[in-house]
Amino acid sequence: MLHTENLDATEIRKLIRSQQITGPTAGMSKGYTQANLVILKKEHAFDFLLFCQRNPKSCPLLDVTDVGSYRPLKLAQDADIRKDIPKYRIYKDGNYVAEVNDITDYWEDDMIGFLIGCSFTFETPLLENGIPIRHIEEDCNVPMYKTNIMCEEAGVFSGPTVVSMRPMKPSDAIRATQITSRFPDVHGAPLHIGSPSLIGIQDIMHPDFGDAVTIKEGEVPVFWACGVTPQAVIMESKPSIMISHAPGCMFISDIQDKTLSVI
Amino acid sequence: MLHTENLDATEIRKLIRSQQITGPTAGMSKGYTQANLVILKKEHAFDFLLFCQRNPKSCPLLDVTDVGSYRPLKLAQDADIRKDIPKYRIYKDGNYVAEVNDITDYWEDDMIGFLIGCSFTFETPLLENGIPIRHIEEDCNVPMYKTNIMCEEAGVFSGPTVVSMRPMKPSDAIRATQITSRFPDVHGAPLHIGSPSLIGIQDIMHPDFGDAVTIKEGEVPVFWACGVTPQAVIMESKPSIMISHAPGCMFISDIQDKTLSVI
Repeated sequence: MLHTENLDATEIRKLIRSQQITGPTAGMSKGYTQANLVILKKEHAFDFLLFCQRNPKSCPLLDVTDVGSYRPLKLAQDADIRKDIPKYRIYKDGNYVAEVNDITDYWEDDMIGFLIGCSFTFETPLLENGIPIRHIEEDCNVPMYKTNIMCEEAGVFSGPTVVSMRPMKPSDAIRATQITSRFPDVHGAPLHIGSPSLIGIQDIMHPDFGDAVTIKEGEVPVFWACGVTPQAVIMESKPSIMISHAPGCMFISDIQDKTLSVI
Repeated sequence: MLHTENLDATEIRKLIRSQQITGPTAGMSKGYTQANLVILKKEHAFDFLLFCQRNPKSCPLLDVTDVGSYRPLKLAQDADIRKDIPKYRIYKDGNYVAEVNDITDYWEDDMIGFLIGCSFTFETPLLENGIPIRHIEEDCNVPMYKTNIMCEEAGVFSGPTVVSMRPMKPSDAIRATQITSRFPDVHGAPLHIGSPSLIGIQDIMHPDFGDAVTIKEGEVPVFWACGVTPQAVIMESKPSIMISHAPGCMFISDIQDKTLSVI
């Protein structure tokens, strides 16, 4: 069995590129920042870049490739975003059409890759500060919800903010706010603490994406802006083609999580 | 005499729009965030937005208008960037051609305004923490220098980072690092502390822009990325037209400085 958590990012990307790893990356290359991927053609790139600039909590950009380039130079000089993600999803005109392990055949010379921060990065310092994370304890996906908090529009892109939720004790919610405030590149401070209905969530036990988790007596739900937001928003505008990572199958960068802390 | 420091941002913008104020804005509407302005046509907008994303310390974007819109909606709903800056400079093909108080006649319907954070915003909390600011004491412009720190390229835009310099005691440099780290939207933490030659500055008493200031015995120079960087970089690429604020004549927004602190 591979001890993937101890492999460095370069080694793990080799295993991914050779398709020895084709599934979720949670827990792999501990300490290295993982990123969401969105690939669009140039015609939508300005609007999407502007959307990210206007919605930094849900769409914190870690890297944007040059037009036609599959090299995410800020995150990993030798990486190739066409091959270095375990599983991709292809969407045409807003419809999901295929799941593949390599997108070389889909790559076009006016495509641009957007690499977006992921909450995996802030979960490590939360755990290190003794804050339990329920979906890790229950070994399932984090629960995610559409809210009534509308994103700032940009060109063709508009839609609601999607949030992830972690239940915790109020004292932990305060500490978690302090810790995640230091990481604006991976969603930053929470968007909301407490009553789900105030942000348009009807039933906390029925998330729109991911899995429901137990909320214990005395705990409050804490909500962070989620990297699913840009994907959901892009789908609404039905671009001719959009490529993303498959859920949980992230890009593993050479950047150490701790270097993303602003203080 | 007008006591402009106590006027709120809406009132001061009225005086600017009616050209009762046509000069530098330093010290006006105390507590309100001031911003650098760059206006480009759509053909350069994606490259420039990408340049800002890749160089957040020198080009922290506070707002970007929609294509053809002169409304900076995040910074001031009712503002008009064609009229609400005391003095503008017009550059054609990389050459400075005119200085005007209103750019309505120059506005084209594919223009986009980029509003970029300004170090005026972090000088207030520095002063409030008892850190003296030499160029304010000596009533001159902050000294600025071209460095050998190259910006990350984006499309047609590339060039060196320009820094501003404030001399201070080493203990103040440490406190200033803590304070400015909280303000990533207005250049954030220093880029460099100490020896100017390490970042390619030959003579600290001959700045490339602004004025030289006294460095006292026992003080170290502290360097921050500067909002002059994007202007210098754009000029190099000689776009058919670029409009910016005249030096020191900034856009005064409705945003309170203190709301830009990340923690």
